[in-house]
Amino acid sequence: MMRTRPLKVALLGCGVVGSEVARIMTTHADDLTARIGAPVELAGVAVRRPDRVREGIDPALITTDATALVKRGDIDVVVEVIGGIEPARGLITTAFEHGASVVSANKALLAQDGAALHAVAEQHDKDLYYEAAVAGAIPLIRPLRESLAGDKINRVMGIVNGTTNFILDKMDSTGAGYQEALDEATALGYAEADPTADVEGFDAAAKAAILAGIAFHTRVRLDDVYREGMAEVTASDFASAKEMGCTIKLLAICERAEDGASVTARVHPAMIPLSHPLASVRGAYNAVFVESDAAGQLMFYGPGAGGSPTASAVLGDLVAVCRNRLSGATGPGDSAYAALPVSPMGDVVTRYHISLDVADKPGVLAQVATVFAEHGVSIDTVRQSGKDGEASLVVVTHRASDAALTGTVEALRKLDTVRGVASIMRVEGE
Amino acid sequence: MMRTRPLKVALLGCGVVGSEVARIMTTHADDLTARIGAPVELAGVAVRRPDRVREGIDPALITTDATALVKRGDIDVVVEVIGGIEPARGLITTAFEHGASVVSANKALLAQDGAALHAVAEQHDKDLYYEAAVAGAIPLIRPLRESLAGDKINRVMGIVNGTTNFILDKMDSTGAGYQEALDEATALGYAEADPTADVEGFDAAAKAAILAGIAFHTRVRLDDVYREGMAEVTASDFASAKEMGCTIKLLAICERAEDGASVTARVHPAMIPLSHPLASVRGAYNAVFVESDAAGQLMFYGPGAGGSPTASAVLGDLVAVCRNRLSGATGPGDSAYAALPVSPMGDVVTRYHISLDVADKPGVLAQVATVFAEHGVSIDTVRQSGKDGEASLVVVTHRASDAALTGTVEALRKLDTVRGVASIMRVEGE
Repeated sequence: MMRTRPLKVALLGCGVVGSEVARIMTTHADDLTARIGAPVELAGVAVRRPDRVREGIDPALITTDATALVKRGDIDVVVEVIGGIEPARGLITTAFEHGASVVSANKALLAQDGAALHAVAEQHDKDLYYEAAVAGAIPLIRPLRESLAGDKINRVMGIVNGTTNFILDKMDSTGAGYQEALDEATALGYAEADPTADVEGFDAAAKAAILAGIAFHTRVRLDDVYREGMAEVTASDFASAKEMGCTIKLLAICERAEDGASVTARVHPAMIPLSHPLASVRGAYNAVFVESDAAGQLMFYGPGAGGSPTASAVLGDLVAVCRNRLSGATGPGDSAYAALPVSPMGDVVTRYHISLDVADKPGVLAQVATVFAEHGVSIDTVRQSGKDGEASLVVVTHRASDAALTGTVEALRKLDTVRGVASIMRVEGE
Repeated sequence: MMRTRPLKVALLGCGVVGSEVARIMTTHADDLTARIGAPVELAGVAVRRPDRVREGIDPALITTDATALVKRGDIDVVVEVIGGIEPARGLITTAFEHGASVVSANKALLAQDGAALHAVAEQHDKDLYYEAAVAGAIPLIRPLRESLAGDKINRVMGIVNGTTNFILDKMDSTGAGYQEALDEATALGYAEADPTADVEGFDAAAKAAILAGIAFHTRVRLDDVYREGMAEVTASDFASAKEMGCTIKLLAICERAEDGASVTARVHPAMIPLSHPLASVRGAYNAVFVESDAAGQLMFYGPGAGGSPTASAVLGDLVAVCRNRLSGATGPGDSAYAALPVSPMGDVVTRYHISLDVADKPGVLAQVATVFAEHGVSIDTVRQSGKDGEASLVVVTHRASDAALTGTVEALRKLDTVRGVASIMRVEGE
C-alpha cells in the first residue's frame, strides 16, 4: 500500500494558520504518512515577507513568487491560507491548471467565486476542499456534504463568527454596552483593529452563503444573503431578552421554505431561548445547529478561528485530498443540482420582539394592535409599562413574514401616539 | 458523469431502521441519484417474517434467504441493519466475498469483530462503513476518521446511550430514584423490556471500543473497556453532585495517557460540572466531546437512536460507498498503525467524590486523611456533617490513579471509625 515518492505540498501564506500547518506537517509527519499511505513533503512556502524568521521551516523553501510555485508542475496539493480574493483566486486557478488539488481556508473567496473555482477543479478532475472556511476547526462542511448526503437538510442555524459571539456573550454576562464589550474584544485580540467585517456580519454572511449552497444543493451567492450587523444591539435589548427567557446571538440562518420550493439565507442578531443549545455557546466559540428530515436536530460545536484550530481543519482536508490523489479519485465536488430559487428577506417567516415608545394615554394599545392586525401580523404577547407620561409597549408576535412586519413597523411609525420604535429583534429557535 | 445502470442495494433487516432506509431510498430517489451520480435500486430485502405487511416495499423484493441475497453477485452495497453477532457477521463476510461493499449499523459486531471484518473488506478491496453504529444520526465516525485525520486526538468523552441519559436526566430534574426513572423510560419506549445492555453499560462500552480504536489508530477490544453501569446511582448522589455544581452522566471516556504512550477506554457514571457542554444534554440525546492537539475542544450533538436518525447515518454512508464504487476507490479503511497499549483501569487518572458514613467522634477526620495520604491520594476538599452520633464525610480528591483510589477505599473500609463507604464517583470534565 505504502509508496515512497512523497506527495508534494505547496503552502501559500505563512501567517498564523500557515505556520501552524507547516509545524504540524513536520511534527506529525509519521502520523500523516500512516494516515495518507504515503509521505507528504512541504515543497515550497510562498510568503510576502521572505526575511521574517520562520521557525522550523527550511529557508530554502521560502519564496515570494507564489505563481512560480503553483506552476512548478510537480505539486500535488496547494494549501491556500492567504485569504481575500486576489491573488488567491488566480493562484488557485493556476494550481488546478498545473495539476494540483487545492485545500483552502478562504471563506470570502469561496462565497464569492466558489462556483467558478469548482468548475475549474472539475474541468481538471481535481479536488477543492475548504473545511476551514466555515467555523474553523469544527467538522461541518464534510458532515453536511457527506454524512448527511442521504438526508434532506431543512435548516442550518449557527454562530459562525467568534468575535461577535465574544462581544454578545460579554454584554449578556456583564451588562456591558456594545462599545465596552468591543473594546475588550479588541484588547484581548478577538477583534481586529477594524472590526467591520465581523460586527457588520460580512464574515458571517460569506459563511452563510457557503453553508446554504452545500445544505440545499443550490447556488447561493453572497448577494443573496440578507445581512444585519450587531452594532445596534444594546444592553436594553439584553434586558428584554432576559425577560423573555432568551439571550441574543448573531446568527447565520439558512432555511428551506415550508413548501420546500425555495430557500433563504440571512445574518442578523436574534433572540433565542436559553434552553436552545446555541444559547450556551460562550466566548469566541462557534456552533452550528442543523435540522434535517431524518436525522432531526444536530449540533456541531468548537473553536471557530485561531491558528491551530484552522490548521486542524486544513490538515484534515489535506489528508483526504492526498488519499484521493493516491487512489486516483476525487471527493464530492460542487453540488447545485437542486437549483432552488433564493427568496428575498421579505419572504422569511419568523417571530419578532418589538419595543415601542408610546404616549401614556388610553387607546394607544388598541391603535397599535389595529395596525398589527391590518398587516396580518398576529400578536402573541403585549407588555405595557408607563411612567411620567411616557410609556413603552413590548409586542411579541406570532410567526409572520418579514415583509408584513416591515409594513407594520412603517405604519406604526406614522401613528401620532408612537414616539419611536426602540428596537425590533427577530426571535428564533423555538 | 451520470451513468444509467443503477447501483444495487441489498437490505438485510427491515425493522425500525431498515424500513426507514427503504422508505427514504424510495421517496428521495432523485436526490440520491443526483448526489451519487447514478441511480440506486433496492434489489432485495432479507427479513425473518416475510408475511408482515411492509408499506412501500415491493413484495417481490422480500426474501427470507439473506445468504442467497448477498451471494447474488450483482449487489453493489449490502446494508446490514439486523444487529447482533450472527448471522450478521457471516452475511457481511459473504457479501465482501461476493463483491459487495457494506454499510452496517451494528455496534456490537463492530466492537467485537471490527478488525476481522475490516481485514476481509480490505482483502476484497471493498468499503465497510458504520457511521450509524455510534451515536445514531450524529456525524462522528467520519469527522473522527477524516476531518480530524491531520490532528492528534487526546480524548473522546461522550454520552453515547440515550436510554441511560434519559433516566439520569429524569433523576436529575425530578429527584426521582433510579427505579422510578427506569419505569418511566420503559413506559415511554426509551428502555427495552430487558434494559441490561443499556443500564449496565454494555451498549456504551461497545461504542467506546469503536471510538477509541478510531481516535487513537489502535486496536481496542471490547474486553479492554472498563465498564460500570448506572443502576447504583441514587437520588442522594445527585444531591451531592448539585452541591459540587455538577450533574451525573453515564460517560464513555477514551483517553490518551499524558505521556502519550498508552490509551484507556472506560464507561461509568461520573459527575461533570454544569458548565461543561455535556451537562446540558437532555433526554435521550447523545453528544460526544472531543479534545485534540490542534482543534481544541469540539462537540457533536444529536439524536443517538431511533429509526429515522439511524437511517440518516446509514444513507450518508450509502451515498459515500456508492460514490466510491463509481470512482473505483475505497474510503479510509481500518487504521491501527499506532498500536498503542491499552492500559487497565488502575492506570486511569481522574478525580473522585467519596461519601463516607463515619463515627461522630474526634479524630475521625485525621484518621481518614492519613489513609488518603498513605496511598498518595491528595485531598481537595472535605465536608463533615453529623447528627445523633452518626456523621458523614464527603471527600473530593485531586487527580489520582484508580489503583491508588481503590487502595485508599480498601484501607478506609478497615477503619473502625468508618461505618461504610456510601458512594464513590469519578469527577470528569474539569
